[in-house]
Amino acid sequence: MFISERRADVIWHGGFAHGQGSLRSDSGAFEHFPITRCARLEHSTGKTCPEELLAASLASCQAMAMAHTLEQRGYAPDKITVQASCIMENIQGAPKITGITLIIRGSVPAIDANTFDTLAIEADRLSPVANALRNNVEIRLNTALEYYTSS
Amino acid sequence: MFISERRADVIWHGGFAHGQGSLRSDSGAFEHFPITRCARLEHSTGKTCPEELLAASLASCQAMAMAHTLEQRGYAPDKITVQASCIMENIQGAPKITGITLIIRGSVPAIDANTFDTLAIEADRLSPVANALRNNVEIRLNTALEYYTSS
Repeated sequence: MFISERRADVIWHGGFAHGQGSLRSDSGAFEHFPITRCARLEHSTGKTCPEELLAASLASCQAMAMAHTLEQRGYAPDKITVQASCIMENIQGAPKITGITLIIRGSVPAIDANTFDTLAIEADRLSPVANALRNNVEIRLNTALEYYTSS
Repeated sequence: MFISERRADVIWHGGFAHGQGSLRSDSGAFEHFPITRCARLEHSTGKTCPEELLAASLASCQAMAMAHTLEQRGYAPDKITVQASCIMENIQGAPKITGITLIIRGSVPAIDANTFDTLAIEADRLSPVANALRNNVEIRLNTALEYYTSS
């Protein structure tokens, strides 16, 4: 059964080394994101790139999956933070996204640390973006229950 | 050999249904992207979501892979556009990203349509984001050589 269709598009001018692109999304959340080879492979200098967007996709998906899983099991989360770090390496002459580390922290009343860790693994199995990357990219979960001061 | 590390993080407050998050990237390209369940599963209303970010990641990766592949084969592209549409479906009770359609258009001097199509397939095999999704998400390529007016 259909749930959603989400679109983004890029216009690229020129070759790879010296060309440049502009990225927009159908939602309107971003309209003119510049994309360059240099920002991707050297210094980002304020520009996003495919690997950063993939990290953003996975971080946001995992945070929602975690909120959903906790809620379903009767734990109402106060706050969840997810940081995703996407590593690209040169493997036999070709660039490859080899791993994404997720640092997942949560402030959740009335839960113990073991249950939090177990539900983080359960949330990972639910996460559509994690499942889209499964077996191709090593997703490393680093989870901890924390008590934040209110913010 | 290490090429790059790119990071993004999300802060999520509350449960899944009524909670909300804020997404930022290390590059600074985006700092306060709001994320909600409703924007993801119902109407985007100007907000991005994990599936749109995945579409943006793949579209930008494929455009750069295409520019690189064309350039390597001696064809200097004027312009390449890539639109990515990410479909999420409910499969046996769970949300799953089932397919992404890529509409790839190019204005490339001195190339014929068959060579353009062949190099689009070669670029897809090179694309790190496409390879991260390989065998989990059906990536459909819709390619055509076009002659744009200058813009």
